[in-house]
Amino acid sequence: MDDRVHDHAETLVNWSARIQSGDDVVVRVAEGAHELAVAVAAALGDRGANLVTVADSDEVSRAYLRGHDGEFDADPDFERELYERADSVLSLGGGRNTAALSDVPADRSQRFSRARAGIREARLDTDWMSTVHPTRSLAQQAGMAYGEYADFVYDAVLRDWESLAAEMAQLKEIFDAGSEVRIVNEGTDLTLFIDDRTAVNSAASVAYDSHNLPSGEVFTAPYDTAGVVTFDVPMTVRGRQVRDAKLTFKDGVVVDWEAAQGKDVLDEVIETDGGSRQLGELGVGMNRGIDRPTGSILFDEKMAGTVHLALGRAYDACLPDGESGVESAVHVDLITDMTGDSRLEVDGETIQRDGVFRWEAGFET
Amino acid sequence: MDDRVHDHAETLVNWSARIQSGDDVVVRVAEGAHELAVAVAAALGDRGANLVTVADSDEVSRAYLRGHDGEFDADPDFERELYERADSVLSLGGGRNTAALSDVPADRSQRFSRARAGIREARLDTDWMSTVHPTRSLAQQAGMAYGEYADFVYDAVLRDWESLAAEMAQLKEIFDAGSEVRIVNEGTDLTLFIDDRTAVNSAASVAYDSHNLPSGEVFTAPYDTAGVVTFDVPMTVRGRQVRDAKLTFKDGVVVDWEAAQGKDVLDEVIETDGGSRQLGELGVGMNRGIDRPTGSILFDEKMAGTVHLALGRAYDACLPDGESGVESAVHVDLITDMTGDSRLEVDGETIQRDGVFRWEAGFET
Repeated sequence: MDDRVHDHAETLVNWSARIQSGDDVVVRVAEGAHELAVAVAAALGDRGANLVTVADSDEVSRAYLRGHDGEFDADPDFERELYERADSVLSLGGGRNTAALSDVPADRSQRFSRARAGIREARLDTDWMSTVHPTRSLAQQAGMAYGEYADFVYDAVLRDWESLAAEMAQLKEIFDAGSEVRIVNEGTDLTLFIDDRTAVNSAASVAYDSHNLPSGEVFTAPYDTAGVVTFDVPMTVRGRQVRDAKLTFKDGVVVDWEAAQGKDVLDEVIETDGGSRQLGELGVGMNRGIDRPTGSILFDEKMAGTVHLALGRAYDACLPDGESGVESAVHVDLITDMTGDSRLEVDGETIQRDGVFRWEAGFET
Repeated sequence: MDDRVHDHAETLVNWSARIQSGDDVVVRVAEGAHELAVAVAAALGDRGANLVTVADSDEVSRAYLRGHDGEFDADPDFERELYERADSVLSLGGGRNTAALSDVPADRSQRFSRARAGIREARLDTDWMSTVHPTRSLAQQAGMAYGEYADFVYDAVLRDWESLAAEMAQLKEIFDAGSEVRIVNEGTDLTLFIDDRTAVNSAASVAYDSHNLPSGEVFTAPYDTAGVVTFDVPMTVRGRQVRDAKLTFKDGVVVDWEAAQGKDVLDEVIETDGGSRQLGELGVGMNRGIDRPTGSILFDEKMAGTVHLALGRAYDACLPDGESGVESAVHVDLITDMTGDSRLEVDGETIQRDGVFRWEAGFET
């Protein structure tokens, strides 16, 4: 076994999920993630945790959903109890075919999902973590050779998370104290406000309220956005390509938009509801292991040297207690590359220039 | 997918486990049994059952057990509740390496097993069924090519179970009414008593108190065995070959034994305890889909035209209420071929001659 599989498992169990002796841990294993499951089981055994391994196979789900008439029982208690009594749920993604569920009728999947709202909630109430094991299917989706993709995933996952968390804490501190953010880039001059908002230091650990491995971003919930932004990092939104989307904001709301490709999907997203015309998230990618976009938002938005903004729903963690931010049925991230002739400013001070942070380059303002 | 995989799944879900709409079903899937799991999920969806799929991977178990220090928590409740609340547990065997657990220290496995006695009991309290999906690993163990082994498994599994159950009911009736059984064969003339004992019609269904698919045997619990028996079907006992074991019984107890091969393992078994010197089971194989021994007792003892006798523990189901039969730490089946010049008699009447039952050939006495 590739040593990195063991390192991935150790990172997941120790840094991310903070598993302790006696913890009851459910490990959900996608069809192609068996090798990672073996390494995770070794790490859980070593920690003295208890283990139930759930097979999370898309092909099994497809067969079950297609066979079923759609009248699903609500939250079957044998499954709900498993998750309600679990301390942690570790989901190991990595299927063998990203299109494995393509011929399941959409309303069947939706009814199944609605019938299991209680089970999902129980799972999200645990110290849950999601990660992915590199598979040929995911490499294909990313347009990479298998070995190349495995290198890419492990570069993103096997960081010095303690050190990255400390670095990200600096940006969080600036955001938490700050009021006005300005992003200047080719085709971009955007102002956003963040006073009273709390930034999340997303360091790929339940200890940081961060549930994805890899992570590596600092994000907050902006308001009153004004100006223009161009998203020059290629994105896949709802399975369709979006290139060079350019959005104009006034008083916090998108008033104009265009795109070199994918204007139709941008129309769909922006016209969803009231919240989808506003920005729910301002995020700064800080994972230097991610060096290129792959069409998977789990990785793309964490890429060092990028800033992402999401149309739609804001995260509660960023908002003052009891205050609701942008509410929407959608949350669609779009990314701009800051490694060119760019500036990220907070209250007039330059925090990042041409993709390099102040603390890296030692520059003042 | 091979149509027989679907037929196997339908047989398991409908005939064997009698799954009803709304049943909570745990499906345990060995590493090589994913294809059968897909077909079982389709059948369960079609029945309107609820499904939790547990990955039952020997490699995951090995990693966990080797990583653990051996101080296992007793019956972790998140797992116990899953099985206590389940209506049925379907175990789909079929690993990728029958030796996958070979380097787990024996005492580690035993401690793990003891710590989980409550979970095992909860599982056995459900309508549980065990079956196997043909894998290359199991084909190798049986000394067969993969396609040949798949044919062998499906011939055994895809019977007309209703018709076989009706045929087996005839033998059960004869055993239930009978007192003295005599087995005559080359190197065999053995007498056993069965009055007050109840035979089990093991028809591969929870409706028949039978939990293995395939099955296809009628068995009971004899006593006061006397005479000589030669087991001419090659057996694998504790991983070692046993050939032509010849046992002599007096007053229900083995008094002499020899074997052309494997006398040492026979010594071990017989000298285990008081019960291991007696016969706990008399079984008659009636599955005509099983035409040769493969070294797997799940199949071998069901082979049509054979009789098997087990040294050691008797099954409670065969005994009068409150009476205990042979008690022992072991239950080792040995098989004799009845297709040669043979007779199976009950109270002086010939029930089977040369491997053919009275109702097949139409002979009297």
